[in-house]
Order: sequence, then structure tokens, then C-alpha cells
Amino acid sequence: MSVQAISWSPSGAVRIVDQRALPDALVHRDLESIDETAAAIRTLQLRGAPLIGIAAAMGLVAGLRDVRRGGRDAFLARLRTAAACLADTRPTAINLRWALTRMTAIAEQTPGDAAAVWERLRVEATAIWEEDRAMCRRIGEAGLALVQDGANVLTHCNAGALATGGIGTALAPIYLAHEAGRRIHVFVDETRPVLQGARLTAWELTEAGVPCTLLADGAAGSLMRGARVDLVLVGADRIAANGDFANKVGTYPLAVLARHHGVPFYCCAPSSTIDPSTTDGDAIPIEARSPDEVKTIAGRAIAPRTVAAFNPAFDVTPARYATAFITERGLEHPPFGS
Amino acid sequence: MSVQAISWSPSGAVRIVDQRALPDALVHRDLESIDETAAAIRTLQLRGAPLIGIAAAMGLVAGLRDVRRGGRDAFLARLRTAAACLADTRPTAINLRWALTRMTAIAEQTPGDAAAVWERLRVEATAIWEEDRAMCRRIGEAGLALVQDGANVLTHCNAGALATGGIGTALAPIYLAHEAGRRIHVFVDETRPVLQGARLTAWELTEAGVPCTLLADGAAGSLMRGARVDLVLVGADRIAANGDFANKVGTYPLAVLARHHGVPFYCCAPSSTIDPSTTDGDAIPIEARSPDEVKTIAGRAIAPRTVAAFNPAFDVTPARYATAFITERGLEHPPFGS
Repeated sequence: MSVQAISWSPSGAVRIVDQRALPDALVHRDLESIDETAAAIRTLQLRGAPLIGIAAAMGLVAGLRDVRRGGRDAFLARLRTAAACLADTRPTAINLRWALTRMTAIAEQTPGDAAAVWERLRVEATAIWEEDRAMCRRIGEAGLALVQDGANVLTHCNAGALATGGIGTALAPIYLAHEAGRRIHVFVDETRPVLQGARLTAWELTEAGVPCTLLADGAAGSLMRGARVDLVLVGADRIAANGDFANKVGTYPLAVLARHHGVPFYCCAPSSTIDPSTTDGDAIPIEARSPDEVKTIAGRAIAPRTVAAFNPAFDVTPARYATAFITERGLEHPPFGS
Repeated sequence: MSVQAISWSPSGAVRIVDQRALPDALVHRDLESIDETAAAIRTLQLRGAPLIGIAAAMGLVAGLRDVRRGGRDAFLARLRTAAACLADTRPTAINLRWALTRMTAIAEQTPGDAAAVWERLRVEATAIWEEDRAMCRRIGEAGLALVQDGANVLTHCNAGALATGGIGTALAPIYLAHEAGRRIHVFVDETRPVLQGARLTAWELTEAGVPCTLLADGAAGSLMRGARVDLVLVGADRIAANGDFANKVGTYPLAVLARHHGVPFYCCAPSSTIDPSTTDGDAIPIEARSPDEVKTIAGRAIAPRTVAAFNPAFDVTPARYATAFITERGLEHPPFGS
């Protein structure tokens, strides 16, 4: 079985796996407040577009526990402030905004006092988490036919259990194929600079007993040229209406390589990742992260201290590179309507 | 001015910059024996196809200092053993074999006793070094017209002063353009797993005052898609007769991206890198290095201990991806005759 990335603690905090500690240690951490939740998202204690959305929704509930005994208006005001604070943590993933919008809308529609609204939010956050878990499984089922016995799948970053409330998006068809007894093998891009592939994907696949091989991002070309990859499965942080999508930096070069070698390339994501109000890839804001992520590894400098670094967290892959999009609704092709 | 990667020590040892210590420290090390030279090449204390060839030639001279007072036949026998030992250190770069063949051939052709042969070898090794230095400059002059004022150049790995006896191969046109007062800027792929871009190229460009920006290898696609790269300059470890060439892993994906975006892509190397006896890229042996290079950084594990890793040191770029080859003879196009 795959790891559980998020849950409620007995006291109603958001219990997460602190992903910064992997693969050295499996550390759980309880997020008690809005500030702790925002810091956890910003510092990549948890990451992955679907998981960020779930954590934000659950974080609202945990962080507003103490306010539910006050008045309704004060509660709703605090909710809006908290949602704005959480929305501000990371700019690219749309699921974050989607979850926060859903939570604030449901709060405003719920009659009664603060306690009643808070209780409704608790139900809604749990629903967002459980829906995500179900969506992961349906993405897995939709993609299962693509991962045949003997398949070699290449993936980038982490779009697995550690990125979602369930068994992942890009890794979902892999987990289900493995469960079904198919002999599959996964090539895992290490995914510099934050090494989500090496630290997270290789870890969760190994924990689940799925055979996998790690590689430096630059080695994917050798695999493709050697016809050693049957298909590529990646996730997405935001899918524009025309099908252009943002995902972890390094996805676009992989898409170009896949097309160049005739290797099928699938983008796996819940439909909440599709943002009809973003017309195309140029409209997706790309988060620029600290140069230190590139210039240091595990606290040690690997480059001259004064050198500049270009560190976009994501890149945009134009729609035409995706063989198909795999959502909980099945295999889909853009454009995506509202 | 660029750094000097190799020289003779006052006592006749091979003095090198220990490249493992960069960018933290500029450490010089004297290689006194064949074994020390072989170990230095194998453990990447020095690397870069031209520099490995020079170091092997100079290492023969340093390592055979003590044998030159014996008989001629014994000296030649020791020379052949030493050359075989050095040839065995790394399989892909052809310059290593080229330099060793040249040294053993000149020894056999030189009349006289062991001391005379050794003295001839010392002259020959110095000639190999000085020829390389001159070749670097001629490569720079041949490529200078391609690096216009305002140019943004992307490079991979280190094909600079730290890879040669002079100002580098791929970096040579850059150094000359900078010397000529052109405002140029270099994007440096960090080049996982050994990080030659981050540790070496960014360091030597910074030392020389050439503006540069470091990036994770996967971010090159974002630059190309954003039309931020005017040309790509890379080196080579072996060029086959048909023009297919081996270079640091990650070069081939860059070549595919460059072609996809219409960005000129040049392979810069001395003509000694061309091996007419290697018909095409499939015949180039690709060194598989330790999985630990991928699984650890600066001694710290970044992946599960049990996971497998795919770690080819090089990849092969088919000839058609190169806009041209820049050698000391000028811009060339394959096939390359003998």
C-alpha cells in the first residue's frame, strides 16, 4: 500500500508527512494553525497540487477551531483572511485556489452560527480529501490499460501518494497495475533542484514494492534514444482551457523528447486542476523560487556563492505534446470547457 | 584570465587543480606516479576529454622518472604497462587513447638509451599540452563570430579551462568574445550528477568575470521556449567518423530541444577528439558510473538506500543535431575522414 500523506490528528489538527525529511525519516507533523499550514505549504513540508488544495481546506478547519465560539460575522471575516493568507503561499497550482474558493463559498451558504458553519467546513474539507482519494483511484483505473505487463514507465517529480490524498495522479495507474500483478518498472527522474523524484517518488515506490530506477534528469534522453521507455506519465499543477499545462520544471523537455521519439506522453490530474479561466499556458503564473535551491544541496554550496541562478518551479507544456489527459472522468482531449 | 588546470611541478610531477574541491577551494595536487595519475583520472580529480589526454601523457613522464636510469628495453616495457594502466581509467574519451598511443609510438621511434627516450617523452608530453592550448585558442577564434555582442549562450558540463590545457573548447569562443569586450551572458546547466556545470563552469566563468546564470538541467527547456538562448556550445569526449558524438549525459536532450526551437547547436572539440576508427555513435563505449553519484550528494543520501540508479556518464548525439563542429581547423561538417 502507498503512504498516507495527510489526515486529521485526534485533536483536529492537520497531520502531514513532513516531506523535507524524506527519504531519511518518516516524520509526521501536526499543523495547528493557519500560520503553520501556510508555512508548511510555502516551505514544501508538503507539496503536490492536489495535496496543497486538501491541506489548505483542512488547514482552514484546524486553524479556525478556536474562533467557532464567536459570532458568525467575525468567523466569516477570519475565514476570508485565512483563505487569502493560504492562497498567497504558492501561485501556480490552481487546486489551492479551487479548494479555498469552495470552502469560503460553502461557508457563506451555510446558515446558523459560527459553530454550525465551522462544522460544515469540517465536513467539506473531509469531502475534498475523500473526493481526491476517489479521483486518484479513478485516474488509476482510467490509465490502467496504458500500463501493460512489462511496461517501462518514465515519470518526473512526484505525482504520487505524497502529492495527493490518495494513491497519486501519475502514479495511480502504476499502483493499480502493480496491484493487478503486472510486472512493471518505473524510471524516476530525480527532478532537480528539489529532488522530489529521488526523495519522494523513489521512496514511495520502494515502500510499495514497485520496481524502480532513479536517474539524473539529463539521462532521460539516453533512455528514450535506447527505446527503453514505453510511456511517460506526469502530473499537472494547472491545466489551461486550451490544454497547455504547468508542471514541475523539466516536464516540457521530457514532452519534447517523448514526441521526438514517438513515446506516448500522458498528463494525469483531477479535473479540479483544469482552470477554464486560464485561457492558455502564457496566462499561467510561474513561481520563481530561491536561487539557493539550485546553489546548495542539503545545506552545502555546490556553486560559487555569487553566481546568479534561474529557478522557475514549473514549466509550461503546450497541449499538443500530451497524447491525452487522464482525469477521473477518463481520457480527455482539450480544449476544456467550463 | 582563465584558470590553469595543469602544469609541471618544479620536481617534475604533474601539478593539477583537484576539481573535486571546487568551488569551495582551489586545491593543487602533485601527481608523482602512474598510480596517482590513474587514480586522479578515475576519481575525477581531473576530467574533460582533452585534459585527460594531456594528464595521461604528462603522467607517463612523471611516473617513469625513476626508471630512466635503467635499460632501454626495461623502460619501454614499463612504458607499455603504464600506458595500458592509464588507458584503462576511463573508456569513452578518445583523447586519452590518442595521447597514450602518440607517446608510446614516439618512444619506440626514439633511438638511444632510456634517459634519451624519457627526455623525448618529456618534450612530447609538453608538446601535447602546448598544442592543446593552441588548439583551444584556435577553436575560440573559429567560434568567435558566432558569439555576437548581446549573445546568450547555453552550455552543459564543463568544456572550459578546467577541461583542457588552455581556455577550453566550448568556452573558448566565450572567453574570446568576453576579451573582445562583447557583452555576453552564459547560461550554465548544473549538469547532474557530478555537477560540473555548477562546480566548475560557473566557478571558472565567475573567476574570469564572464556574466553567467546557473540552472537545473531541466530548466533549459523553459529558456528555449522563452527564446532566451541564442546558441548552444558543448564539448565532446569522442566524435565518430560519421559525426555522431559522445558528450556528458544531458547533451542529447539539449540537442533535441535546440533543434526543436531552431537554436544553433555547436560541438566544440580539438580534432584529436575525432576517432575515424569509430564508425558511428553506436560504436562508442559509454561509461557506466556508480549509482552512488546519483543517490548521494556531498556524502548525503538523497534517495532510498536500496533503489537502483541508471548512471551513464555520457550520451550520444547523432551528427545531424550539430549545426557544425568547431575544431582548431574551423567550422567542419561530417563525415570526418582519416
